Amino acid sequence: MKQQILENSFVGDRGRKTGLPPGTPVHVGEKRLDTVKMTVIGYNPDAMTWVDEARIDDLHQLPRKEGQVCWVTVNGLHDIDFLREVATYFGLHDLVLEDIVNTEQRAKIEEYDDYLYLVSKLPQMQEENARLHVEQVSLVLGKDFVLLVLEDEHPIFQDINDRLRNKTSKLRSNGADFLFYTLLDEVVDHFFNILEILGEKIEHLEDHIISDNSPETLRKINRLRHRMILLHRIVMPMREVMSSLERHDSNLLSNELSPYLRDVYDHIVQVIDTVDTYREILSGSLDIHLSANGNRMNAIMKVLTVISTIFMPLTFIVGLYGMNFEHMPELKWRYGYPIVLVLMTVIGLLMVRWFKRKKWF
Amino acid sequence: MKQQILENSFVGDRGRKTGLPPGTPVHVGEKRLDTVKMTVIGYNPDAMTWVDEARIDDLHQLPRKEGQVCWVTVNGLHDIDFLREVATYFGLHDLVLEDIVNTEQRAKIEEYDDYLYLVSKLPQMQEENARLHVEQVSLVLGKDFVLLVLEDEHPIFQDINDRLRNKTSKLRSNGADFLFYTLLDEVVDHFFNILEILGEKIEHLEDHIISDNSPETLRKINRLRHRMILLHRIVMPMREVMSSLERHDSNLLSNELSPYLRDVYDHIVQVIDTVDTYREILSGSLDIHLSANGNRMNAIMKVLTVISTIFMPLTFIVGLYGMNFEHMPELKWRYGYPIVLVLMTVIGLLMVRWFKRKKWF
Amino acid sequence: MKQQILENSFVGDRGRKTGLPPGTPVHVGEKRLDTVKMTVIGYNPDAMTWVDEARIDDLHQLPRKEGQVCWVTVNGLHDIDFLREVATYFGLHDLVLEDIVNTEQRAKIEEYDDYLYLVSKLPQMQEENARLHVEQVSLVLGKDFVLLVLEDEHPIFQDINDRLRNKTSKLRSNGADFLFYTLLDEVVDHFFNILEILGEKIEHLEDHIISDNSPETLRKINRLRHRMILLHRIVMPMREVMSSLERHDSNLLSNELSPYLRDVYDHIVQVIDTVDTYREILSGSLDIHLSANGNRMNAIMKVLTVISTIFMPLTFIVGLYGMNFEHMPELKWRYGYPIVLVLMTVIGLLMVRWFKRKKWF
Amino acid sequence: MKQQILENSFVGDRGRKTGLPPGTPVHVGEKRLDTVKMTVIGYNPDAMTWVDEARIDDLHQLPRKEGQVCWVTVNGLHDIDFLREVATYFGLHDLVLEDIVNTEQRAKIEEYDDYLYLVSKLPQMQEENARLHVEQVSLVLGKDFVLLVLEDEHPIFQDINDRLRNKTSKLRSNGADFLFYTLLDEVVDHFFNILEILGEKIEHLEDHIISDNSPETLRKINRLRHRMILLHRIVMPMREVMSSLERHDSNLLSNELSPYLRDVYDHIVQVIDTVDTYREILSGSLDIHLSANGNRMNAIMKVLTVISTIFMPLTFIVGLYGMNFEHMPELKWRYGYPIVLVLMTVIGLLMVRWFKRKKWF
Amino acid sequence: MKQQILENSFVGDRGRKTGLPPGTPVHVGEKRLDTVKMTVIGYNPDAMTWVDEARIDDLHQLPRKEGQVCWVTVNGLHDIDFLREVATYFGLHDLVLEDIVNTEQRAKIEEYDDYLYLVSKLPQMQEENARLHVEQVSLVLGKDFVLLVLEDEHPIFQDINDRLRNKTSKLRSNGADFLFYTLLDEVVDHFFNILEILGEKIEHLEDHIISDNSPETLRKINRLRHRMILLHRIVMPMREVMSSLERHDSNLLSNELSPYLRDVYDHIVQVIDTVDTYREILSGSLDIHLSANGNRMNAIMKVLTVISTIFMPLTFIVGLYGMNFEHMPELKWRYGYPIVLVLMTVIGLLMVRWFKRKKWF
Repeated sequence: MKQQILENSFVGDRGRKTGLPPGTPVHVGEKRLDTVKMTVIGYNPDAMTWVDEARIDDLHQLPRKEGQVCWVTVNGLHDIDFLREVATYFGLHDLVLEDIVNTEQRAKIEEYDDYLYLVSKLPQMQEENARLHVEQVSLVLGKDFVLLVLEDEHPIFQDINDRLRNKTSKLRSNGADFLFYTLLDEVVDHFFNILEILGEKIEHLEDHIISDNSPETLRKINRLRHRMILLHRIVMPMREVMSSLERHDSNLLSNELSPYLRDVYDHIVQVIDTVDTYREILSGSLDIHLSANGNRMNAIMKVLTVISTIFMPLTFIVGLYGMNFEHMPELKWRYGYPIVLVLMTVIGLLMVRWFKRKKWF
Repeated sequence: MKQQILENSFVGDRGRKTGLPPGTPVHVGEKRLDTVKMTVIGYNPDAMTWVDEARIDDLHQLPRKEGQVCWVTVNGLHDIDFLREVATYFGLHDLVLEDIVNTEQRAKIEEYDDYLYLVSKLPQMQEENARLHVEQVSLVLGKDFVLLVLEDEHPIFQDINDRLRNKTSKLRSNGADFLFYTLLDEVVDHFFNILEILGEKIEHLEDHIISDNSPETLRKINRLRHRMILLHRIVMPMREVMSSLERHDSNLLSNELSPYLRDVYDHIVQVIDTVDTYREILSGSLDIHLSANGNRMNAIMKVLTVISTIFMPLTFIVGLYGMNFEHMPELKWRYGYPIVLVLMTVIGLLMVRWFKRKKWF
Repeated sequence: MKQQILENSFVGDRGRKTGLPPGTPVHVGEKRLDTVKMTVIGYNPDAMTWVDEARIDDLHQLPRKEGQVCWVTVNGLHDIDFLREVATYFGLHDLVLEDIVNTEQRAKIEEYDDYLYLVSKLPQMQEENARLHVEQVSLVLGKDFVLLVLEDEHPIFQDINDRLRNKTSKLRSNGADFLFYTLLDEVVDHFFNILEILGEKIEHLEDHIISDNSPETLRKINRLRHRMILLHRIVMPMREVMSSLERHDSNLLSNELSPYLRDVYDHIVQVIDTVDTYREILSGSLDIHLSANGNRMNAIMKVLTVISTIFMPLTFIVGLYGMNFEHMPELKWRYGYPIVLVLMTVIGLLMVRWFKRKKWF
Repeated sequence: MKQQILENSFVGDRGRKTGLPPGTPVHVGEKRLDTVKMTVIGYNPDAMTWVDEARIDDLHQLPRKEGQVCWVTVNGLHDIDFLREVATYFGLHDLVLEDIVNTEQRAKIEEYDDYLYLVSKLPQMQEENARLHVEQVSLVLGKDFVLLVLEDEHPIFQDINDRLRNKTSKLRSNGADFLFYTLLDEVVDHFFNILEILGEKIEHLEDHIISDNSPETLRKINRLRHRMILLHRIVMPMREVMSSLERHDSNLLSNELSPYLRDVYDHIVQVIDTVDTYREILSGSLDIHLSANGNRMNAIMKVLTVISTIFMPLTFIVGLYGMNFEHMPELKWRYGYPIVLVLMTVIGLLMVRWFKRKKWF
Repeated sequence: MKQQILENSFVGDRGRKTGLPPGTPVHVGEKRLDTVKMTVIGYNPDAMTWVDEARIDDLHQLPRKEGQVCWVTVNGLHDIDFLREVATYFGLHDLVLEDIVNTEQRAKIEEYDDYLYLVSKLPQMQEENARLHVEQVSLVLGKDFVLLVLEDEHPIFQDINDRLRNKTSKLRSNGADFLFYTLLDEVVDHFFNILEILGEKIEHLEDHIISDNSPETLRKINRLRHRMILLHRIVMPMREVMSSLERHDSNLLSNELSPYLRDVYDHIVQVIDTVDTYREILSGSLDIHLSANGNRMNAIMKVLTVISTIFMPLTFIVGLYGMNFEHMPELKWRYGYPIVLVLMTVIGLLMVRWFKRKKWF
């Protein structure tokens, strides 16, 4: 299971590609959906058309006119031919197609003559096993279209669909760039959900870090640390992307969008902040855990030492009078036995007092 | 309890917002006051008016003229409608209102056409349980007004009210920007109070770090470390804010203010310096604590080993002569018993001497 | 064996050179091949010539004309005279020849009037003993030629040979700069192979880090850590090289190549990212391992303490009634023996209960 | 005592000031002298006047003419009124006066129209208890005067007085800026004295770090670490000060001074270098100490284990033949006792040999 | 001995200078040679003159003409008057002379009107005790002369003397700047020798880091760590020096020298790289050593616990039947003894099996 986490997110199957000529689109990554699905939406402030499970033909029948925004979502990457037809329709460069299907990309933004290509990462927490799994989101913004390519289906984009149906929503009255921003905002906001879940786990862990020393606690720290390393790794390049987007002078992005893009940038900075804080807390937790180990060991050792120090001399004394020498005068004394009992009680009490003074109790 | 600390300050309820269209003002954070309170103050060098628990009407009746400064304080964020009316009165942007009510902001400064919007953080140490809790302070500076929005009521701003009543005070003879600076200075100075309290805790801890190994000490270190991480996190963006404020060329800030803003900047740098120093001390403390653990364990082990090493051979000898063989000549010797006693004394003394030479005593 | 790793990669035999006048080409490094081999390939979109195990004469007979690309590969560095003849043929500077044969270079790029000289590193994982061993790759790009000098033969460049034979390949229709890029891409992609192997080792290790405490585990961590330090060290200067290549305005590199060079740069950044992630994981693993050690020790200590604490008092009691005093009334009691047995059982059970309450079981 | 160190240097009594209007000079810090003392010196290449324990009148009677340098030293900060009169005489800004009396400043330099204001820190090692205590030095350089304000009296500035009396000294023939530089140089050189003392302590500590594990050693490391954190904290801003002084184009500083100011800058960089080196050594020392702890524990445990492992089986055997069964044939054997003795000797020797092979002796 | 290392390299006797007027040349450092020695060499492509143990007169008699290079080497710094005469002959500034004799400098380069002054550091490994000791090398480059001032005599510069005698060498046909470069190259190459020796020590140490836990191993790590801190400290400023030399536009350095200076720069970067790598390896080694300690302790503890856990119950049983109660029916049983023997064997075997299952064997 852990192997999966790492394989998915750290190096992956890049090796599979060596030897192929550069520029060949190969789907690198897990296949997450059975069939590739496409949704085609066209809208303007007045009307909206919607085709679920669309085919390439649906795309071609889409009206492209002034004030009309075209939003195409593709779920699933493994049907390269299908994706190539979509890419051709929108006039995308070969390298863009190659990047879309290769899910091992770092987040990045690339400007082409008449479209922007942005790769982002979308972390997902799997309910059944709390595995953190990272998907790739490709966003292409053109003058009148947004192409969204996902590895899988996600409910988070459903909200936007719903909002679109509302004629009075801001989305309907704005252009493709506003849709592009809204999708991006949704992706970034999703990080907060993940962080909230992980934050709760960390808080729960912190409560037990000093008192609990089962290997399970260690395993949890280790697992959370891995997830934080992973999140840090996918989030850092996103800051660069958002920052360059904020400073962008592309004519695809209207000026009214600037404060909104700054807002997204602020959010991603906040995500990084939180990830770093969690990393720091976790790294400190391990030190605390180590120190707590030491304290616990001291406590155990004290018990052992107290017991040994009290009983070893006493056991020696009873052994002494268990010897079978013929000439041991004490053995014949009338009060030999009670004297020895008193002597041992005194020794025991002295020991206890000594440990009390040393604060071992 | 600890859960609360983290929840309040690290990620919070951002997740609650996902799915809403961007730009919707939603109060994200704890509700700290029962009713939202507003105080409206108008002053100029000659006169001063004061309305406690003001309503929106009081705001509209406020005279706005040359040389008159209007200072409005709102305590409490949960009455969105009320705040929207205030925001509308001062002509604030929707995004500013959204940021005011969302208490999960990092400190930041934003310049609009005719006002400056600054978000700062205000740490509070709760008396009853020494919990560090962070509130948000929103400051809006206009040409002739200052709007201060707080989550709760704070005595620290009361001093400024008092000073304002004094006709000869610098505050009265200066404009809105000086009031703005004074409020900011108060916020930054408040950090020193917090640091002083934490500093005393750290000093107290340092005194016990080597001698005390109760889990309580570890818990204290951990708690202080968390607070420092939290303070570091809220203070770092404040430096950027103050730095950009110092270098500001806004015409809302008069030139005479420059040395004062530099002073505030110097203070925040000093706060960061102190926080970093404390973090370093705490992180070192843990190492020292770990080493002290090791030393303590050595001491305990030595006691155990000395006791065992002395008594094990002696117990063996007395066991030897406790055997019931029929033919054990020593048992019949006239001086067998005293010889064995002498022998054991000699062995014991040799052991003691050996440990003395090894410096185990 | 470990000595070899370090010697090969960290300082090497640089010392061997001190005292010689600067600018003297001396082969510094291990001799990896028996004989120096040269392959000479000439191609244009229409035709391709190929000479394996070529001699200097073959080089001179190579047609050099417009649209014709000449690719020369030399395997093996120890025949300085041979290499000097090749260098002379292409008009390379003395210092370039010196750098080619000295395998202790960091990756770097140097621009000369009519050629570019690039040194890269190529890590190799030896099958038999999993040793990581680093070779040097020298690439010289001229207007119509590419010179590739390797320490050994590598299958990774064979693929490119094979692709060249295909008349429709992109390689055939492009110039020397595209070949140069393709070779570089192959080198960088090879890093992913190495990282994949190391990543699997790390994942395998992580699974055992908490449960296993054999010295072998420590040795593995140490070995992986060393390899990561080594990879980090050779990869960091490669980023600078790729970055300066991407921003290059040399007329040897056509404009169409820019997106491809940016791609190579992205890959090397991803390699660095992965190396850093692995380093972080490994460094954390050691901490986890240390904490696991502490936990394990606690568990062992508990067993010892429980056993000692239960049996020491009991052994004392049986010793007590093993004493040979004449006047020990208990010994004569009818039920003395069963009473003692019961007493001891009670003591034992109390101990067990006490440990249960302390959660030591 | 430690509390004092921290209080003096880390946050101090800043809190005491909150609530006061900004710009109010309040003496923040310890009162170190009973009475404030002023020394007024006027000199030119030909003549020199000197007034110890001067009053404000003496200041006003000081001739101010071309080529005459006026050097005023004030020792003690608690007489605010006196200092205000001095500040007024030299025409200093209110904020400068406030900074002079507030000893919680970081080192800084501020340029005003006709004077430079520089705050530096002066560490002092108290002889009696080796406490490091930091004072503040304020230096004001005007066209023809230098004002030096100290918290206490220091012998290090006495040397400069002595040199001034010598007519041929460089000081006499140069202007106020050279005196300013000389004072600064003296302050920076004083850091080397402190570092030398601390360096000796560190060396002394290093000699014992592996062999000694008393809590006293830990306390010493902790104390030195604290001092280094403190020194680092006061020295870092001094580099900025010196660097900005070196690059200064103020007309108060003549061009001939440049190499001298660069020299002071070099020295402060060297101080930082040394402080960082010491910090690194100390932080490593703790790790070494921790490892040495582990080694020592291993040694103790071996002794305990060897003793227990040898004597436990033997004690069992003698206990065995101490049993009182009626039917124990061995007990009646003629050579039962010697056989058992031999058996136990053999077992003991085997154990010893086993430990020898394990290298536990 | 260690005290010496630190004294020599970290702070030294800087304190000795406080109180002296700045600009006074005082020899700060150890006196390494009995008498100061000077070697004066004059050469041009055709002829070469050589005076060993030269006096100031020999310097004055040296022909200074076009195309003639004058190389003066001074070994030993303690004869200030002699050095002042040499400095006067070449027209050096007072501050340069002061820096030459003060061996506590960081590496630096200073440009004067007609000469360059460069200070470098030269590490030496003393054969007898492997102490690392750092000397200072001062190099002054004029239009037609190079002045080299050393603290001691070094064979590494002898090679250059030998090469000079060879008429066909590059040195003879080039100017003073090439000699300057050659000397610098020699100094930097010497670092590789030192690193090679230290590298071997580190490799040797790494082999024992897991298996060996003698305090000697710790001492070696600590010593190597100190040396690396020292090397790092002297090498870091050298990079700045080389870098500023590479970018230099002084007319004292011909353009043909540029690639050579870049080469020296590359080497010093490689030295820093190696030093950093070694530091990282050493710091990791300590962690590994600490973990190995923990593993070893676990192993010892297991032996102790196994022995105790097996023999304590058995000893209790034999003690039980050693009691002297009159009514102990088992004692009279015919097969009491064999039954107890069997019982104990069973208990022992169960214990062994339990430990086997726990993998403690």
